[in-house]
Amino acid sequence: MFNDFKLMDDRPVSIQVKEYMQRLIIKGGLQAHQKLPSTRELSKLLNMSRNTIITAYEGLEEDGFAYTVHGKGSYVAETINSVPDASWNMDWSSLVNDHARKAVELDLMKRGIRAKKDMISFTSIAPDEKLFDLANVKRAFQDRMSVEGNVLLNYGYAKGYKPLIDYLLRYMDHKGVDLKGKDMLITNGFTEGFDIVLSALNKKHGSVICENPTHNTAIKSLKLHGFDITGISMEQDGINLRELEQALLKKAFDCAYFVPSYHNPTGIVMSPEKRQLLMKLMKQYQVPVIEDGFNEELRYSGSHVAPLMATAGQGNGVIYLGSFSKVLFPGIRVGWVLADRELINYLESIKRARSIHTSTLDQSILYQYLYNGNLDKYLKKARAEYKRKYEWTKHCCEAFIPYERLSGDGGLHLFVTFNEGFDTRELLEACSRQGVIFTPGDNFFTENGQGRHTMRLGFSRVTDEDIGKGIRIIGDTAKQLMG
Amino acid sequence: MFNDFKLMDDRPVSIQVKEYMQRLIIKGGLQAHQKLPSTRELSKLLNMSRNTIITAYEGLEEDGFAYTVHGKGSYVAETINSVPDASWNMDWSSLVNDHARKAVELDLMKRGIRAKKDMISFTSIAPDEKLFDLANVKRAFQDRMSVEGNVLLNYGYAKGYKPLIDYLLRYMDHKGVDLKGKDMLITNGFTEGFDIVLSALNKKHGSVICENPTHNTAIKSLKLHGFDITGISMEQDGINLRELEQALLKKAFDCAYFVPSYHNPTGIVMSPEKRQLLMKLMKQYQVPVIEDGFNEELRYSGSHVAPLMATAGQGNGVIYLGSFSKVLFPGIRVGWVLADRELINYLESIKRARSIHTSTLDQSILYQYLYNGNLDKYLKKARAEYKRKYEWTKHCCEAFIPYERLSGDGGLHLFVTFNEGFDTRELLEACSRQGVIFTPGDNFFTENGQGRHTMRLGFSRVTDEDIGKGIRIIGDTAKQLMG
Repeated sequence: MFNDFKLMDDRPVSIQVKEYMQRLIIKGGLQAHQKLPSTRELSKLLNMSRNTIITAYEGLEEDGFAYTVHGKGSYVAETINSVPDASWNMDWSSLVNDHARKAVELDLMKRGIRAKKDMISFTSIAPDEKLFDLANVKRAFQDRMSVEGNVLLNYGYAKGYKPLIDYLLRYMDHKGVDLKGKDMLITNGFTEGFDIVLSALNKKHGSVICENPTHNTAIKSLKLHGFDITGISMEQDGINLRELEQALLKKAFDCAYFVPSYHNPTGIVMSPEKRQLLMKLMKQYQVPVIEDGFNEELRYSGSHVAPLMATAGQGNGVIYLGSFSKVLFPGIRVGWVLADRELINYLESIKRARSIHTSTLDQSILYQYLYNGNLDKYLKKARAEYKRKYEWTKHCCEAFIPYERLSGDGGLHLFVTFNEGFDTRELLEACSRQGVIFTPGDNFFTENGQGRHTMRLGFSRVTDEDIGKGIRIIGDTAKQLMG
Repeated sequence: MFNDFKLMDDRPVSIQVKEYMQRLIIKGGLQAHQKLPSTRELSKLLNMSRNTIITAYEGLEEDGFAYTVHGKGSYVAETINSVPDASWNMDWSSLVNDHARKAVELDLMKRGIRAKKDMISFTSIAPDEKLFDLANVKRAFQDRMSVEGNVLLNYGYAKGYKPLIDYLLRYMDHKGVDLKGKDMLITNGFTEGFDIVLSALNKKHGSVICENPTHNTAIKSLKLHGFDITGISMEQDGINLRELEQALLKKAFDCAYFVPSYHNPTGIVMSPEKRQLLMKLMKQYQVPVIEDGFNEELRYSGSHVAPLMATAGQGNGVIYLGSFSKVLFPGIRVGWVLADRELINYLESIKRARSIHTSTLDQSILYQYLYNGNLDKYLKKARAEYKRKYEWTKHCCEAFIPYERLSGDGGLHLFVTFNEGFDTRELLEACSRQGVIFTPGDNFFTENGQGRHTMRLGFSRVTDEDIGKGIRIIGDTAKQLMG
């Protein structure tokens, strides 16, 4: 006993002693009703204070691994060890269903080139954590804890944390959304919100219409829900409305999915005129709209653009999905669904069945952070920094990359389109050998094989120097490949 | 302008001024290219410092709602207001599917008697938040933040926060689980873990076997996944094995769901012998087991009982779902799935597709709290308090309630069975008029109409005095109803 005991730096010593002995008992190294060494003996053997050993023994007893015989000492309690008869093996790959297989197949994190150390990676569109105003987040935690404390650590409500809902409703009101007849559900980020909405909607026609290319997580989710996807091509001011109308004439859709601002991956902001025409079309064909409020806050110039939901006035045809993940902190998993009250009632029950509720700490810290007035200050700082980087990246692309089209009106990425026939997978292969990677654009297209001549460059987490160096390498390599 | 402006106490004044004007612009109260009052005028009008107004105007410009003409002043930018043509209404109740309708129908929070103020409510089995060691949670937050800071606020991994996974693997190892060939996924509590597992499993036979009664959230989840449920009755030492074997002989099952310790709602701990026999049966019939580790930590007496997974040794037939929600803090939404490595690979991709990852703050705070050695100390305190309450509740039940059977070996609730024919819904109706409510037992049964003569009494959040008072009322009312 204790030959292989290694004291670690990470937890109280008495707990380590207790856990070591517990493990011995469970693994059969100490037999039931065997006498344990006295606390005096063990404290000598291990060179520890006797109090430490007494605490460890108390812990063992507390957890049912030992018992005391008065005046005699501690003994090992009867516990169950593993029973070889009860051990059996199953072939899980044959026990999982097509949904699980498809989830792995569509999981981009499990394929493609991973960033290695010292690589210049343009694959991420996550915010730059160096900008985070940590002190304000800490203060928000402390402020909230001192107001509500223990209550925050007990169960909350499926719909979400009430003060946050109220705050976000006002926030949406200030974006021009008419809140009458609407309600809000807090979700574990955009992704859960989208997934819950898709879980609730009829699949009468089994088909969805959206921009092409579009957000790859949304494509994955739509596919996992078994939808057929009709992708409509993009113009410089947003979705191609003629193509959209033709598709709507030809086929019925259960819903539409649009990313009107700083569209992922093209970075395009749909023009105000197009927004109005788009919404008229959706009304005409009675197709419910799922609006992805992605990056709406990362506007660097031009007028404020209202969400599609604002143009719909008191109408209830738009489901708005919001999130601060790209704007503030993605680690805080909070998003919101703003929609017709009746629909939210359904979504709330699905949310409760799935995960009870979103983390109250995340919600209450976010609420307090907003309440303390930090968002405006932070946005000002973050926008200035990202705008500078955006302009620098754009400049580098213009200087070095032999593209056919470059798009991106803001946000944290640019989208490059080469001549038809050029293959960005080949380009990626060649660049990665030189330590530079990016996201090949075909990931964002609704049909396999489309967009092979495009790529997305996320710049938010790349230094200015690396942006210059990396884009030069991409450009030079592309020119070489073009011959 | 500013006639209906009400200054609130909650956010910086400049932001309130900005938002008021923003709303006016969006709602059309201020027209595009209209000149805004000078900062000097407005500061006089509102009786605010000129700096406050300048900050508000800067914010408006920053967000694209205003522009400055040099030497002339600030003007309203062009934005879009709602377009009546684009407003339309849909009938959402006809646009949602059966899944959404079933989720509402099975949502117990949306039916039944709600606790009103001053009522004595035995419906909750959430922990008592007064016991929470808030200071240690705060310290955990500060400690973790000072070690990792900003990184915690950016994206994490779908599988979970690595230090927490490592900690929990060791924790499961100390419960006697053989980790070889196994892996772990962190989920948003037990409920999400269960839902993800059910999403991944084949529905070849479309049927699941479990204890009856059992955890009502699990029943809901199984029904929402379209499973037929075969419920096996309970004996005082756990599931009825003869009945189980007969069911296994008659029919094939895709999986089994068991709550071996402090079973919800009966509070029964499955005996060690039964655990071994159960596992042999499951091996014989090759049925994968989903083990709910619910309340395993809330043992008040007797020897440590190993999870079913521990008895399975190196076998991979058990999927273990763990959570500290009843033991520590339910508001921190963290659970874990420990299972065969290959299966976890599938579950990880489903998790990523659904919600990217579980809140990093929740995970890292929980990790640091455990790492700081708080669990053992807290459990000691919580167990002592709950044990006392458990014994007091049991005593009151024995003294006042005309039950046929009383069960519950620990945990945060007791389960009362009356004579067949007695109706606890009627009892609840009568008691609620006297300000006392509980959970009618039929909620926990797999078939409608079963268990009408049972009820669950959660005592964790009721004071000693109210326990005595409430149970006396329940007992007296039951006696009256029995005539």
